[in-house]
Amino acid sequence: MTNTLYLPELREYLAQNDTNELREFCDALHPARAAEFMEGLTPQESWEVLHHASEEARAEIFRFFDPAVQIEVISTNPRKEVAALIANLRPDERVDLLKEIEPRVCDELLELVPADDRLDILRLRAYPEGTAGAVMTTDFARLREDMTVAEATQEVRRQAKQQETIFYLYVVDAHDYLRGLISLRDLVLGDEEARIGDLMERDVVVVHVADDQEEVAQTMARYDFLAIPVVNQANQILGIATYDDIIDVVVEEATEDAHRIAAIDPLNTGYLQTQLFTLTWKRGMWLMILFLGSLITAYTLSSYEGTFARVPWLVLFIPLVISSGGNSGSQSATLIITALSTGDITLSDWARIVWREFLMGILLGGFLAMMGYIAAAFHGDVSFMDATVVPLTLLLVVLCGTLSGSLLPLLFCRLGLDPAMMSNPFVACIIDIVGILIYMGVALTILEVPLAGH
Amino acid sequence: MTNTLYLPELREYLAQNDTNELREFCDALHPARAAEFMEGLTPQESWEVLHHASEEARAEIFRFFDPAVQIEVISTNPRKEVAALIANLRPDERVDLLKEIEPRVCDELLELVPADDRLDILRLRAYPEGTAGAVMTTDFARLREDMTVAEATQEVRRQAKQQETIFYLYVVDAHDYLRGLISLRDLVLGDEEARIGDLMERDVVVVHVADDQEEVAQTMARYDFLAIPVVNQANQILGIATYDDIIDVVVEEATEDAHRIAAIDPLNTGYLQTQLFTLTWKRGMWLMILFLGSLITAYTLSSYEGTFARVPWLVLFIPLVISSGGNSGSQSATLIITALSTGDITLSDWARIVWREFLMGILLGGFLAMMGYIAAAFHGDVSFMDATVVPLTLLLVVLCGTLSGSLLPLLFCRLGLDPAMMSNPFVACIIDIVGILIYMGVALTILEVPLAGH
Repeated sequence: MTNTLYLPELREYLAQNDTNELREFCDALHPARAAEFMEGLTPQESWEVLHHASEEARAEIFRFFDPAVQIEVISTNPRKEVAALIANLRPDERVDLLKEIEPRVCDELLELVPADDRLDILRLRAYPEGTAGAVMTTDFARLREDMTVAEATQEVRRQAKQQETIFYLYVVDAHDYLRGLISLRDLVLGDEEARIGDLMERDVVVVHVADDQEEVAQTMARYDFLAIPVVNQANQILGIATYDDIIDVVVEEATEDAHRIAAIDPLNTGYLQTQLFTLTWKRGMWLMILFLGSLITAYTLSSYEGTFARVPWLVLFIPLVISSGGNSGSQSATLIITALSTGDITLSDWARIVWREFLMGILLGGFLAMMGYIAAAFHGDVSFMDATVVPLTLLLVVLCGTLSGSLLPLLFCRLGLDPAMMSNPFVACIIDIVGILIYMGVALTILEVPLAGH
Repeated sequence: MTNTLYLPELREYLAQNDTNELREFCDALHPARAAEFMEGLTPQESWEVLHHASEEARAEIFRFFDPAVQIEVISTNPRKEVAALIANLRPDERVDLLKEIEPRVCDELLELVPADDRLDILRLRAYPEGTAGAVMTTDFARLREDMTVAEATQEVRRQAKQQETIFYLYVVDAHDYLRGLISLRDLVLGDEEARIGDLMERDVVVVHVADDQEEVAQTMARYDFLAIPVVNQANQILGIATYDDIIDVVVEEATEDAHRIAAIDPLNTGYLQTQLFTLTWKRGMWLMILFLGSLITAYTLSSYEGTFARVPWLVLFIPLVISSGGNSGSQSATLIITALSTGDITLSDWARIVWREFLMGILLGGFLAMMGYIAAAFHGDVSFMDATVVPLTLLLVVLCGTLSGSLLPLLFCRLGLDPAMMSNPFVACIIDIVGILIYMGVALTILEVPLAGH
């Protein structure tokens, strides 16, 4: 929903080229709010508004623009102006943005960016997507062990102008080896004459630059950190990952999991931003695989055509049997996948998990079996004896559902694959086939159907 | 996975009642790490270790204990000692914890807690679960507009001992009406003589105490806030919600959504912490509802028993038809539900969404129809003409799947209900019934089956 409150004024100021009012608009509001009020403008108009802002406000407001608008602004405006903007953006965010820009444009821009920013961009860009290196920023405040609190405060004031996060201050030696950390809070509370080396925490929790972003998010959430240092093998600090990146990672990973669970290849962009054909492909490839699975079900059924001809009522309960198995299997798979990804369970709990799912399979299956017996026995053509086929099948199928729904994600996790790949439709598809085999096996055992028929 | 690195030492120190070593262990490590190393101890042993810690370290380590251990420690130890601990816990966290304690024990403890803490607990406890009031903390630093930076710094140093979060400082008048905010960063950077009223931000983004916690999380994530003030109708500040609560909320809401999507009533605790019968009930109630839905499918099928007797091959494609519809419907429902909950789409986009899902239904349905035609035509008993029943059905069923999968969550959202209630199995169940009707409708139209038969 676009906020149109300020749109008429903004357009009027633009028409009059009213620098005072536009500058006031950009500087007085929180940058995120200013960006929100500008959502109704075209990318070109937004850029013109930013022209009147101070240099810092310009970069700060720009970072809250919609990604599509950012890309449009960067790609279509004079390279020199854009390069100046890029030099002021946050290191982690500008790298993500430049990845979306046409490579030719990106190269032209990089040439115009100051040398140290360019180097920083190239370095950060080299870290693979989804690692700590790719989410970290290189803007952080450095202190030395031998500084006093008073000196350190001076130093922080000096550095703070360029730094996004100064709530934690990192104590390093001359070669950027991490020695400790002190929070801005403890600096403010510290005695002016105290040495940083005496106040700092030495037991610093770090992540490695190649660690998975999900691990980084879990560590930060467990310790309630605002930021975490990212180090290389030698324990040299390369950057920090901050809480705002981590919230994005958490949302991103949860959404990816939800999509995988529903057999959709995860999207890289929002639902409405994703091209229709891309989205169709990300769904279609899985639907095709599941379709082939269903063909196996059809093939399995075809070997019992004779049985259905002799006992037609068996057909009625096919959807009931396979959906009960599929639904209980999906429940188990979802419970296990979400618990694995929130760190609620680990692989080492597998025996307990499977035992619980076994018990739940018995309970849920037993319950559905009772309901199934009533439903089957009240069908006109079925004797009370013959009707036992349905509850027996339901019990076995639900049990099979809870067991495979829990074992398959655990197995995938054990193999180092994403357990969410073991999607609900996939589990359901397996249970469809197994369910039909169980159903027919039970039916042929209990009913007096000549075996020759199938 | 329990970290057993320090366990032998800890047990030895406990046996020797070695205060020095135990105090060193508690004070030198990060509280979360200390708690991690104590995971292998019994709740009673953990409590004994904490006995040797300084008062602040005790509360800080305790908050990182597993909830089950916290409850055990609180319920089984001398009330007076426990009450002293509770007085030092963070306001929002102790309220959550006390909700889990037996009411009788809780009342006894409350009597022993200092009066102002007791009042604070009673006040926070009154806010309904899931609102801003229930996640906020009442520990935050207050400043006055007319203070200078130097005075404010003194004031922050004075208040900081009790405050968890002093990264943002809230400027209030004598009646706690919120006037503005200043970050600790800007305070440190500010000129000593400057007045807070001149430096503070006046355009403060706030949430209302009754707002949904999901809304609070979304606002904080959008603005990249570390904390957000929670106010009442009159704009008086009641507390602040902080980033660590928000990460928890985001994870909690995403997991709840995932569970609802798989037709599981959301758990209040972790998978392994939830009682087996509770979990069985949370799954069983939905399985029962879905089972009743499947009975309608069975009933629908039974009215076509004659048709199946005459054209037995129709039975084979029942699972294929209903699972194709169900899978495409689940994909759509999951895409829409996750996009709604991340704020990626809003209700106002409904027409665009439905149009996209219509087009995807045609594309995906058309694709599966081609595969379905090949599968049906190669079945021995089916003529090329008769085989067209399968592709036509698939196209219609998949289209019906994408449309109902997108419309139902949107409808639920419109009605003010949680769109995730429109779970995938529920969508699939509806499509089972509609799918059978479409299948039989198409079959009776194309095949030359005497209508009298059904």
